[in-house]
Amino acid sequence: MKAIPSEVQAHFDAGHLVAAIAQDAANGEVLMLAWMNQSALEETITSKRGVYWSRSRNSLWVKGETSGHFQEVLDISYDCDGDAILLKVNQIGAACHTGDRTCFHRQIAPNEVNN
Amino acid sequence: MKAIPSEVQAHFDAGHLVAAIAQDAANGEVLMLAWMNQSALEETITSKRGVYWSRSRNSLWVKGETSGHFQEVLDISYDCDGDAILLKVNQIGAACHTGDRTCFHRQIAPNEVNN
Repeated sequence: MKAIPSEVQAHFDAGHLVAAIAQDAANGEVLMLAWMNQSALEETITSKRGVYWSRSRNSLWVKGETSGHFQEVLDISYDCDGDAILLKVNQIGAACHTGDRTCFHRQIAPNEVNN
Repeated sequence: MKAIPSEVQAHFDAGHLVAAIAQDAANGEVLMLAWMNQSALEETITSKRGVYWSRSRNSLWVKGETSGHFQEVLDISYDCDGDAILLKVNQIGAACHTGDRTCFHRQIAPNEVNN
């Protein structure tokens, strides 16, 4: 029995993916955004590891299965309209395939505006 | 001249939206996930307020324009594949339309698994 809330299940039933944000549980850093289908969320809940749906490979993707950079999932929440998931994780190693700690390592400075 | 990085622009040029995460700049809390088209990102950069694309209303949406719960944007970054944006914001009032501080106010406890 998987604990998927009905608001989230409705998106899966309609054939949609939901967005999943991984956040460092220790320091609050936002690490990455990826996608989940129902299997990915179920696997995340049961394995307590971050598991996503790869849209490019069209397959389940256990974060860290090739790199060793697993995510230990400490908390899972979902948003008011049920189409986004927030994971608080203990990130082993780098979250980004570039080797950076976070995928959000490039900045658009607001003060670059109108340059 | 807007400072939209080419990796992000490529998604707009292909007719896609990008996901935008708003994070409380003060305490790191993830507040909401919404969507941006090119105009939304340009408006966010120039106005330094969170501006999104409403997929349900099919229109630009200045966060707070009806509720007064504006987002003062302090920092903008983007992810390694250019399809997600992270805003660090000073959130005036509640981020969620429910009146909750964050849209992610409901939990899926990992330990509910296999119940």
